[in-house]
Amino acid sequence: MQALNKQLDFIIELDRLKGVYRQALVKSDKNRFENSAEHSWHITLTAQILHEYAVENVDISRVMSMLLIHDIVEIDAGDMFAFSDKAALEEQREKEMAALTRIFGLLPQEQFQKYKALWLEFEGAETIDARFAKAMDSVLPLLQNMRNEGGSWVKHNVKKSQVIKRNRYLEGLAPQLWLYVCQQIDFAVTQGWLLED
Amino acid sequence: MQALNKQLDFIIELDRLKGVYRQALVKSDKNRFENSAEHSWHITLTAQILHEYAVENVDISRVMSMLLIHDIVEIDAGDMFAFSDKAALEEQREKEMAALTRIFGLLPQEQFQKYKALWLEFEGAETIDARFAKAMDSVLPLLQNMRNEGGSWVKHNVKKSQVIKRNRYLEGLAPQLWLYVCQQIDFAVTQGWLLED
Repeated sequence: MQALNKQLDFIIELDRLKGVYRQALVKSDKNRFENSAEHSWHITLTAQILHEYAVENVDISRVMSMLLIHDIVEIDAGDMFAFSDKAALEEQREKEMAALTRIFGLLPQEQFQKYKALWLEFEGAETIDARFAKAMDSVLPLLQNMRNEGGSWVKHNVKKSQVIKRNRYLEGLAPQLWLYVCQQIDFAVTQGWLLED
Repeated sequence: MQALNKQLDFIIELDRLKGVYRQALVKSDKNRFENSAEHSWHITLTAQILHEYAVENVDISRVMSMLLIHDIVEIDAGDMFAFSDKAALEEQREKEMAALTRIFGLLPQEQFQKYKALWLEFEGAETIDARFAKAMDSVLPLLQNMRNEGGSWVKHNVKKSQVIKRNRYLEGLAPQLWLYVCQQIDFAVTQGWLLED
């Protein structure tokens, strides 16, 4: 039962991601902050629904696994707003690496190594699967902000070029989604939800 | 863009599941009620971690898809406590069938039919995949209640036999998990968290 006990400890530890709050707002629940657990659910399903738009072969099972686990390190490291400054993002990266070892290290060795490799692949954003997963993680906040009069963009004075940069994974990978995103960004600028550079 | 617009409408509609609250408590976040979106994330990942215990071949991708979508109907129908009376559960079933058509009907026809079939398979609980998914949906609340001095069981005077019945999918399908669950249930009775029948 030793492996099972380790797995159950990990599963119970996951509960804590429900207490990590992001900058995004949940419009349908009194505009409270969104937590990283429900966000992870939302983008995993978003990836499944939209993966037909990818022009290269995306292994949707791997993408979904990446998205289910990508935020778990925030249990220790907290959530960092995507458009924070570089020094803050580098410090965050160190915290996340430590969290990766502590939290996934609760699992039996084989699963630990599997998830660690998957997390590093996601963060590396070089493979097709990781790039599609990253794209989904960026496109959903855009959809949410567009339905919420700019949401977190307005609050943090985000610029058009920052949102374009963050969604650029779509450009070659899913042109139809990229076109849609560019149109949304332009509309957001006309509404004053994003700043012109 | 018509298909894409339908898919995006569905994705935005999903946000509302974050405002559907269950009887389970999130111990790590001030014991607030758990919502169905974060619950869906948690059991999907739980299934992936534990599926090696299934003695029959489980298609884990299908199980994960089922678990990601199984609660979406609650956007319209609300969450019903698992141990409610039969009449209430039957009324709930009717509401869920209407919700299935309205919410998944936002998607293009092919995806609508795919998810509808998957949801009905989960509810039917006859295939191996559906039974394993159902088992995960039951085992996680048990783990949560065990870490929370009985949690929702105590509040609703739940009996041992009710929890055994609800977790029985594991009996033939994943004997090691079934053994663990039986031990936990016995312990819960000694603590007064579950009522003897």
